[in-house]
Amino acid sequence: MGAQNIYDDPEFFAGYAKLPRSQHGLPVVFEWPAFRRLLPSSLQGLRVLDLGCGTGALARELRKLGAREVVGIDLSERMLAEARARTPDQHIVFQRADLETFAAETDGFDLVVSSLALHYLNDFLALARRTAAALRQGGRFVFSVEHPIFTAQGGGGWITGPNGEKLHWPVDRYRDEGKRETSWIVDGVEKYHRTTETYVNGLIDAGLRLLRLEEPEAEPVALAEHPEWRDERRRPPFLLLAAERA
Amino acid sequence: MGAQNIYDDPEFFAGYAKLPRSQHGLPVVFEWPAFRRLLPSSLQGLRVLDLGCGTGALARELRKLGAREVVGIDLSERMLAEARARTPDQHIVFQRADLETFAAETDGFDLVVSSLALHYLNDFLALARRTAAALRQGGRFVFSVEHPIFTAQGGGGWITGPNGEKLHWPVDRYRDEGKRETSWIVDGVEKYHRTTETYVNGLIDAGLRLLRLEEPEAEPVALAEHPEWRDERRRPPFLLLAAERA
Repeated sequence: MGAQNIYDDPEFFAGYAKLPRSQHGLPVVFEWPAFRRLLPSSLQGLRVLDLGCGTGALARELRKLGAREVVGIDLSERMLAEARARTPDQHIVFQRADLETFAAETDGFDLVVSSLALHYLNDFLALARRTAAALRQGGRFVFSVEHPIFTAQGGGGWITGPNGEKLHWPVDRYRDEGKRETSWIVDGVEKYHRTTETYVNGLIDAGLRLLRLEEPEAEPVALAEHPEWRDERRRPPFLLLAAERA
Repeated sequence: MGAQNIYDDPEFFAGYAKLPRSQHGLPVVFEWPAFRRLLPSSLQGLRVLDLGCGTGALARELRKLGAREVVGIDLSERMLAEARARTPDQHIVFQRADLETFAAETDGFDLVVSSLALHYLNDFLALARRTAAALRQGGRFVFSVEHPIFTAQGGGGWITGPNGEKLHWPVDRYRDEGKRETSWIVDGVEKYHRTTETYVNGLIDAGLRLLRLEEPEAEPVALAEHPEWRDERRRPPFLLLAAERA
């Protein structure tokens, strides 16, 4: 995934493995209800490709929801080892591949998913084209990324007042697409900022039909557990898109 | 257009009439090159509906580009009077109607356009549905609005430093859709903030297929004339969408 493979950094990985989403899986994940809504209503019998599968939480959840087979690909050996250790399921296969260059079987999948991985990628249009080729006709591509509003400035987050209160979220460099170096678990994590325009038109240019765009907030039931997520309504942390091969 | 009809306010109208876009028409307008790109490559023979036509600049431009007939609708009598005075063209018709409730002829139009008017509207989905009904099959809807990043906080604009330099653009209240009171020409102008999600999914829910989403910056030739437009790259001022009736 581009120049950097932060997930093979031992310090980063140790921090990542401690996150609630790594420990407890998808039910505790902020954007999971929105992601679920974008999936086909039934996954029964579907063959699924998971781009940037990490430790396999999404792959395992999709199997629980009825998927026939899930192929997860990731660049990080460390993540793949962890994914295999956590996944005693012969219908989930984890493979090492670089999302910038992978080529999946043509027409091989009913569904391609990706959870918070594609903002590590330099070239989204190329990825969308390879994804479209991997989908059978009528197949669907559903993914989440950090929201362009969230990634644009690439700085340290909320602008705060004298008592640490959040005043607003700063946006800058919106159309200046490319690398942003941020601190997340460790310093120097490289991500790519892109506009919403680039994501949406990339899907369309790859021959996909847009089904849905979501900028979700936390569900009420999640807010009861995580009252701090209320502030995420003030600027969207994630962008989710669903498109299908026409 | 909702509760407020600011364009019939004499002070507002006097200021509006002095804007370069009111004086010199579309070629001097920031987002016109992007808007033009979203229109069908040929307008020859097309019947067009212009939602919120103002003083008729877009209607006249579309006729120059080959449109057979343009029907412009607007709520403001003052704007319509000005539009008629400026438009000696029997194939352009201006009609008074409220965009919140108008009903155009079913299947009557090849193209529906709207330039910076729909953010005065409360209910976008209802508008999208009435627009879809007004389009013939294969017809296109192209519109521009103030960008959700631009309208979210609803405050006074750029956060500036001690020397007046622009530090960043503040985003807040993103998912809190609804009225924003801003100062533009006069105080107390009411606009409606909506998310990009609401615009995109509104089109899809109205049965339209998304063709394009743009968050344009100024073209190089316009920057030579307006170097201050360079800052508009730092956060998008406008959102443009094109969709077609499938």
